[in-house]
Amino acid sequence: MSQSKKYSAQSLENFTESIFKTFGFSQDHAKSVAQTLVMSNLRGVDTHGVNRIPLYVNFLKKGVMNPTPNIHVLKESPVVTVLEADRASGPVVMKVAEEMVFEKAKSYGMGLVMIRQTTHTGALGYYTNQLAKRGLISIAMTASKPLMNYFGAKGAGVSTAPISIAAPGVGEDPIVLDMSTGAISYGMLLQHKKNQQPLALGLAQDDFGNLTTDPNKATIPMSLGGPKGSGLSLMIELLVGVTVSNPQIAQYFSNSPNAKRHSQNAWLLGIDTFRFCDPKTFQDDVIATIQGLKSLPVDADIGEILAPGERGNRERDLRLVSGIPLPDLVLQELAEIATQCNVPMPNPMV
Amino acid sequence: MSQSKKYSAQSLENFTESIFKTFGFSQDHAKSVAQTLVMSNLRGVDTHGVNRIPLYVNFLKKGVMNPTPNIHVLKESPVVTVLEADRASGPVVMKVAEEMVFEKAKSYGMGLVMIRQTTHTGALGYYTNQLAKRGLISIAMTASKPLMNYFGAKGAGVSTAPISIAAPGVGEDPIVLDMSTGAISYGMLLQHKKNQQPLALGLAQDDFGNLTTDPNKATIPMSLGGPKGSGLSLMIELLVGVTVSNPQIAQYFSNSPNAKRHSQNAWLLGIDTFRFCDPKTFQDDVIATIQGLKSLPVDADIGEILAPGERGNRERDLRLVSGIPLPDLVLQELAEIATQCNVPMPNPMV
Repeated sequence: MSQSKKYSAQSLENFTESIFKTFGFSQDHAKSVAQTLVMSNLRGVDTHGVNRIPLYVNFLKKGVMNPTPNIHVLKESPVVTVLEADRASGPVVMKVAEEMVFEKAKSYGMGLVMIRQTTHTGALGYYTNQLAKRGLISIAMTASKPLMNYFGAKGAGVSTAPISIAAPGVGEDPIVLDMSTGAISYGMLLQHKKNQQPLALGLAQDDFGNLTTDPNKATIPMSLGGPKGSGLSLMIELLVGVTVSNPQIAQYFSNSPNAKRHSQNAWLLGIDTFRFCDPKTFQDDVIATIQGLKSLPVDADIGEILAPGERGNRERDLRLVSGIPLPDLVLQELAEIATQCNVPMPNPMV
Repeated sequence: MSQSKKYSAQSLENFTESIFKTFGFSQDHAKSVAQTLVMSNLRGVDTHGVNRIPLYVNFLKKGVMNPTPNIHVLKESPVVTVLEADRASGPVVMKVAEEMVFEKAKSYGMGLVMIRQTTHTGALGYYTNQLAKRGLISIAMTASKPLMNYFGAKGAGVSTAPISIAAPGVGEDPIVLDMSTGAISYGMLLQHKKNQQPLALGLAQDDFGNLTTDPNKATIPMSLGGPKGSGLSLMIELLVGVTVSNPQIAQYFSNSPNAKRHSQNAWLLGIDTFRFCDPKTFQDDVIATIQGLKSLPVDADIGEILAPGERGNRERDLRLVSGIPLPDLVLQELAEIATQCNVPMPNPMV
């Protein structure tokens, strides 16, 4: 295990904002990126936290991510909007979409924004959580270029397209599911490689599309439950990508010079929950549902029965006090970028 | 393998209609049930076909299913309707919902019907397919009483809550995913028991919540990918059940005399696809997406790369010609009901 230091959420947010402002982001846009990334760190989802900054900076340098996007409506019905993101950073355009979904849901009962041509969307649970805190049931999906196996094939055919579903909870925290359609995440493959730890059979293929347990050869995650996970991923691509004429799988298999260029599309849907049911009854039923599940005997190998998002909420409460640990490797990468941007590194907590 | 005879789809539809009419179903309602069940048989999904008739008849005799339901609107916004099913048969109320979703989507771009207190919803893919054939992207979900494991628990906590997503395809057939949130279906557990075939470890628990490979002891399906499948199932319950104040998990764990009584809730959502994108571009991109996937090397252990629903379409085309095989055991059960109802059994094909 490498060394790490701990940082307050506020110090990392300030740092992230400063970095993105040097690339031409407005104060508001930089703040959206910073809040989304740091919330992932707070919740213990470090794969979607500030360690993404080097990737985003790389996107900015290559012109893949646009720091001053012209986000605009392409098509609109009373309750559905197709929003051109113009290669905006995910958190920037998702924040715009959140407000649009909220307005539509309040006016008509439900709203959907289809976001075209964003870049790395970030942790979907952040956005569904935001809407659920405002009383909406929310569903989000996103898909990118193929990197996961498609059932029946040797090799990658679909992305690990995630889906998040959130419902208002009891108290401040909604109930938020945020899952990929993969049997294992890409980040976990890298971690197995780093630790030289063999994989269970069936989790990954090598570059030639053969199943492997060798962490040095495993490059393609398998899908969740074979045809279910890869079928779900394909349907997400049809919904979020093909519908807005920015199809990622079709591009990947084309002869276009941009065939492998990073691009994503996303959906954000919201329903005005309490227009359709009594809030008190809803909350009582949520409590009874979760309590019922927690009343079951616990599987000792797992140790605890949790509601979706509960572990992340607990980690957030801890890290808000004790700080966010960042390993040396991440700090080194951030320090390089800080130097390039002439932004001071955040001070660790003492 | 037991003996079986083959029947034309039309003869099974006529038979099913006649049975349900003797229980007081209107001609239209009986037809909805018949078409939905027989389409499952045609597609090779025999678990959701006419072998469900004995279950439905049992529901009718016990008063769980209402042959003359007062289906009515409980709440409504321009694009969302909460529809009280009054314990209607699933196909009956889903047909009503389909028309409502279609009208809303045509008027506003999108529509959602939340169906409260239906009985066995049937194969969700039937309904999403119907809407997708009419040009709509469609999503359906349903949930019933717990019968599947919840991650971290010993025992059943959630249902195998299915989700179906359909998109317009090329030609007559949409692309339709229809999957449960379980690692194995309940029907498959029964089949392993019948064939005395051991299960792979991790697919099922026994009555005491212990993992088992013994087909005689396996009663509780595990969820797809642990916390992902059971989390998805729980969110579906919150969306379809808690939102309409007919919560199945909460009831199951309550002291109510009806705690274990069969009931379901469902969602049917539709989006007017071609209001938001050019039909020709959409179709071209669907073709390129599927062709790209099919261009990958085939995993010889699986044998073929298929789009969601493709296998069922092929089986349907075959069975429309060669007939639907019904095993002796199913025929015996249907013959008993036929006698009770004074309805002639269908004639097998020769």
